[in-house]
Amino acid sequence: MTKLYGSVEAGGTKFVLAIGNEQFNIIKSIQIPTTTPEETITSVIEFFKDNPVSALSIGSFGPIDINPESPTYGYITTTPKAGWANVDLLGKLKLALQIPMEFTTDVNSSAYGEMVVTGGNSLVYYTIGTGIGGGAVQDGKFIGGVSHAEMGHQYVKRHPKDLDFAGVCPFHGDCLEGVAAGPSLEARTGIRGENIPLDSEVWEIQAFYIAQIAVNTTLALAPEKIVFGGGVMAQEHMISRVREQFEKQLANYVKIPSALTEYLVTPSVADNGSATIGNFALAAKLL
Amino acid sequence: MTKLYGSVEAGGTKFVLAIGNEQFNIIKSIQIPTTTPEETITSVIEFFKDNPVSALSIGSFGPIDINPESPTYGYITTTPKAGWANVDLLGKLKLALQIPMEFTTDVNSSAYGEMVVTGGNSLVYYTIGTGIGGGAVQDGKFIGGVSHAEMGHQYVKRHPKDLDFAGVCPFHGDCLEGVAAGPSLEARTGIRGENIPLDSEVWEIQAFYIAQIAVNTTLALAPEKIVFGGGVMAQEHMISRVREQFEKQLANYVKIPSALTEYLVTPSVADNGSATIGNFALAAKLL
Repeated sequence: MTKLYGSVEAGGTKFVLAIGNEQFNIIKSIQIPTTTPEETITSVIEFFKDNPVSALSIGSFGPIDINPESPTYGYITTTPKAGWANVDLLGKLKLALQIPMEFTTDVNSSAYGEMVVTGGNSLVYYTIGTGIGGGAVQDGKFIGGVSHAEMGHQYVKRHPKDLDFAGVCPFHGDCLEGVAAGPSLEARTGIRGENIPLDSEVWEIQAFYIAQIAVNTTLALAPEKIVFGGGVMAQEHMISRVREQFEKQLANYVKIPSALTEYLVTPSVADNGSATIGNFALAAKLL
Repeated sequence: MTKLYGSVEAGGTKFVLAIGNEQFNIIKSIQIPTTTPEETITSVIEFFKDNPVSALSIGSFGPIDINPESPTYGYITTTPKAGWANVDLLGKLKLALQIPMEFTTDVNSSAYGEMVVTGGNSLVYYTIGTGIGGGAVQDGKFIGGVSHAEMGHQYVKRHPKDLDFAGVCPFHGDCLEGVAAGPSLEARTGIRGENIPLDSEVWEIQAFYIAQIAVNTTLALAPEKIVFGGGVMAQEHMISRVREQFEKQLANYVKIPSALTEYLVTPSVADNGSATIGNFALAAKLL
């Protein structure tokens, strides 16, 4: 009998639920708004009761507890999203559905999906949007010792023309998310990102920071590939700006494993679909 | 029959060779100066012919090629050290000694040794001395997809009082090594590090950078522990300065897995001995 796999992309504004076949093609997919935990989780349970799968994987917004030894394993922990702190997302789904489940971050699911689709053994995925998140895979396992990575909040060297900008991260001010996520563009210019002219200096400033996290990631993890998803990187001019700055900043210190255009890339799966495929693959691994 | 393990710490100025027993105690150890590759490697071979071991591990200065698929696997590659670029260190030792050998970076050996001695599943080791290097272990494997990490060259947010200092890294100027390794202290003050008064502002500046790499490492790798070795950190006042700055910079964003005094530590093995134990343990794993 052929198997079916489930994907839960648990986001702060919507949950995307999907069923995939053994080739990781989507057979059915729905979106539900993220309301209260009770209501939302009940909808997830109903969907998978109506559409049974052999295993599923949850890629969740966070922070979450992914340590199987921990008493709060499977919880969304300290999120500022009202009502969702200390919610036992995995536990409630397991209790109701009684199938094997993987539980990881949304960006880890995306990283895994990109790796499955493009091949290879190691990959880092950054999403640059309203916030910045990162997930990394090496030899089929996620990077993260006692918890998941929070790569988007790493500190970065400030761009010389941007020193007066305080950054918008409520925790750290000018960490990467504070100076390079979407809202930083508007905070600097008073104009929404999508309306800022292409010749504005802020694009170079933003590319400087994104390139820098790529350089630091190259030096720390030596991945086969770094993938940049998210709304900011969906603007076509960004990836070439990032590549150009990356070369300058790396200064040839280490050899990257492929041509720059293959090493720093945008997602190979359209419409943010990497996470769904990643979840199917993670579910398949459980069986 | 009890087994013996070999350790080769290949450094730019000296090689430390050691034989350990199954409890990883050192039975015999010698140091030889690093002269020409021919002479030095011949001495290593003679030592292990006189003192046979079942397996050995080499922790080497670099950069080195640690990819077993690569035609130059086991080589010291692009080092500026005269005569040592493109030297097949592992190959020559294997050919002469015909025993199983591990080949990794010096800091990876140290990271592994600290992990073996203190227990746990994940650990990051930074050495802060003339240069800065870092090695990371997760679940018994080194972090590094296609190559070894070069964590010491990551860029850092500059300290507000240090913006005019260009940094001393010949490749990157003001990467971590350029602003926080030993030589940066002298470059800023004209005084050798060990003679700079304890109330000098440069210590706070240096602690700011070292704390920052600890924050970024915490966010990227979530290790159980970060160990700081090397000459700069051997000064007792440094680790408490680093801990203080770390708390400020992390701003409680993620929970560290233990008390700060257990999370950010100096090596548990004295006199830079972690690498030797790490090599014994890596050699033991080969059998």
